[in-house]
Amino acid sequence: MIPDLPTIEAAAERIRPYVHRTPVLTSEGINHLLNSTLFFKCENLQKAGAFKSRGACNAVFSLPDDLVSSGVATHSSGNHAQALARAARIRGCKAYIVMPETAPRVKVEAVKGYGGEITFCQPTLASREETLRAVVEKTGATEVHPYNDYRIIAGQATAALEFFNQTGNLDIIMTPVGGGGLLSGTALSTRYLSPSTQVIAAEPANADDAFRSFNTKQLLPSVNPNTIADGLLTSLGTLTFPIILDYVYQIITASEASIIEAMKLTWERMKIIIEPSSALPLAVIMENRDIFKGKKVGIILSGGNVSLHNLPWLKQTRP
Amino acid sequence: MIPDLPTIEAAAERIRPYVHRTPVLTSEGINHLLNSTLFFKCENLQKAGAFKSRGACNAVFSLPDDLVSSGVATHSSGNHAQALARAARIRGCKAYIVMPETAPRVKVEAVKGYGGEITFCQPTLASREETLRAVVEKTGATEVHPYNDYRIIAGQATAALEFFNQTGNLDIIMTPVGGGGLLSGTALSTRYLSPSTQVIAAEPANADDAFRSFNTKQLLPSVNPNTIADGLLTSLGTLTFPIILDYVYQIITASEASIIEAMKLTWERMKIIIEPSSALPLAVIMENRDIFKGKKVGIILSGGNVSLHNLPWLKQTRP
Repeated sequence: MIPDLPTIEAAAERIRPYVHRTPVLTSEGINHLLNSTLFFKCENLQKAGAFKSRGACNAVFSLPDDLVSSGVATHSSGNHAQALARAARIRGCKAYIVMPETAPRVKVEAVKGYGGEITFCQPTLASREETLRAVVEKTGATEVHPYNDYRIIAGQATAALEFFNQTGNLDIIMTPVGGGGLLSGTALSTRYLSPSTQVIAAEPANADDAFRSFNTKQLLPSVNPNTIADGLLTSLGTLTFPIILDYVYQIITASEASIIEAMKLTWERMKIIIEPSSALPLAVIMENRDIFKGKKVGIILSGGNVSLHNLPWLKQTRP
Repeated sequence: MIPDLPTIEAAAERIRPYVHRTPVLTSEGINHLLNSTLFFKCENLQKAGAFKSRGACNAVFSLPDDLVSSGVATHSSGNHAQALARAARIRGCKAYIVMPETAPRVKVEAVKGYGGEITFCQPTLASREETLRAVVEKTGATEVHPYNDYRIIAGQATAALEFFNQTGNLDIIMTPVGGGGLLSGTALSTRYLSPSTQVIAAEPANADDAFRSFNTKQLLPSVNPNTIADGLLTSLGTLTFPIILDYVYQIITASEASIIEAMKLTWERMKIIIEPSSALPLAVIMENRDIFKGKKVGIILSGGNVSLHNLPWLKQTRP
């Protein structure tokens, strides 16, 4: 059932001991540059470096005791994997993680660091799902999907819940969109707590399945996505899509160049490390200044897990 | 007069509208690695990217109206310059900034961005002071020294004031030491609010004038300092040194390699950008784990103004 407000509040209570109440930061410089008043909810500073800790903790700590002993399992390109491994370790159970061979090394190492047991697969949805099915069959673990799961959606919804408490009223609230877990959770919390706030999602133009799905009202798959925002390669899910259709105001895409520029601007001006996926909302604002001019805009920065040896603005300057 | 607690509290009240109450962050990973419980007070997320905004705002907003019209002036290798330029702009007066030609480009640009009027000088204390004298003579501006000024010391002391409010009791509180403004202010607030907390300063081994001065009880100058921690090149001042002698427990030095390692660890695990000077306390802990084992340690991260095109761990990997 689509999480209602008491369910989201219960999730917030359940995960409170295991996640950070992340700070909300502002930047005079960026506000001045964009003629808007931006508030950044720093889920890049969240445990395990991403908002995914919220959903993963809610799912793992919702599990009945008799299921816990067999562990949990998932497929994930990275942040959900780390978050689930960490949540499982805290609850005292195993986490079986199916990861594409192409996942960033820093994310693979982090999953291992949290004690997750990794099975690698091909970087396709089919291979992920097939490999996961085999792992679950062998271990009896409970699958915890990265986003197409109401416990996950309720957990991710707690970020916006906190955000409204921290900032009060917002004209617009923005998240990036990949599978739609953060977006659908944010849309629900906004609907319940601040229904006049517009929910606007930001997606790479090079991975625009949510944009196309939203505008055609049909769940379309991600086809050959090719973006630096490696957390946003997945397609929307059957549970996240209807919530997004009902409660999201607009999905806007941004170019790869804008994503890199927004990422660098955030590092430089705000002194925080965000991964490319987190830069999407700011990239969208930079490309569409008129829409956001004079508005009070809340942005959920989704994560900060990025290799420090491979910065896109350094690549660009090479001959 | 050495700032007393009411003076520091008045400074906190005076600067409140113009500075951030910066968050305190923690990292499970770093705590686990070092067997300590560390709290990081994020002055890298402060306005203008450093704790210097506290002292500069306190000094500028303490000025009587009749002096304001002639502006303020200082010599600074960077962060104080930005902070003073910003504070002056808010108060509506000019800021004349004497900077060494060797100051990082990112810091020069930031001062210009805040409307500061820059006069370049040679990178020696003598040249800085002589150039500043000429500027002050010509403009009638009020000099605001980067650290050897009780208004500055009281302003910097507000960071520890906030820190104790945010974390409660600490076994140890640490700052880097350059000219000693942050350290002396921190020592005073600690003395007033948490006298059982040890104040430990961290200094580059390659710029160890404070270490030598502290241990010989004589104010010794910095001689050919050569460290990546470009905020810590200056010598202690005649006002900061006595406070440090009285209220600081210990000064410990760290190697350049440890500074870089601690900086990278902070970026990677905490997802925040700190400049090399901010990495000193963590570098000292990494080199002296036994001293800090099992302790509750507060670290003031001094600033985050660093070029994103010139990361020390990338340099190291070049052939």
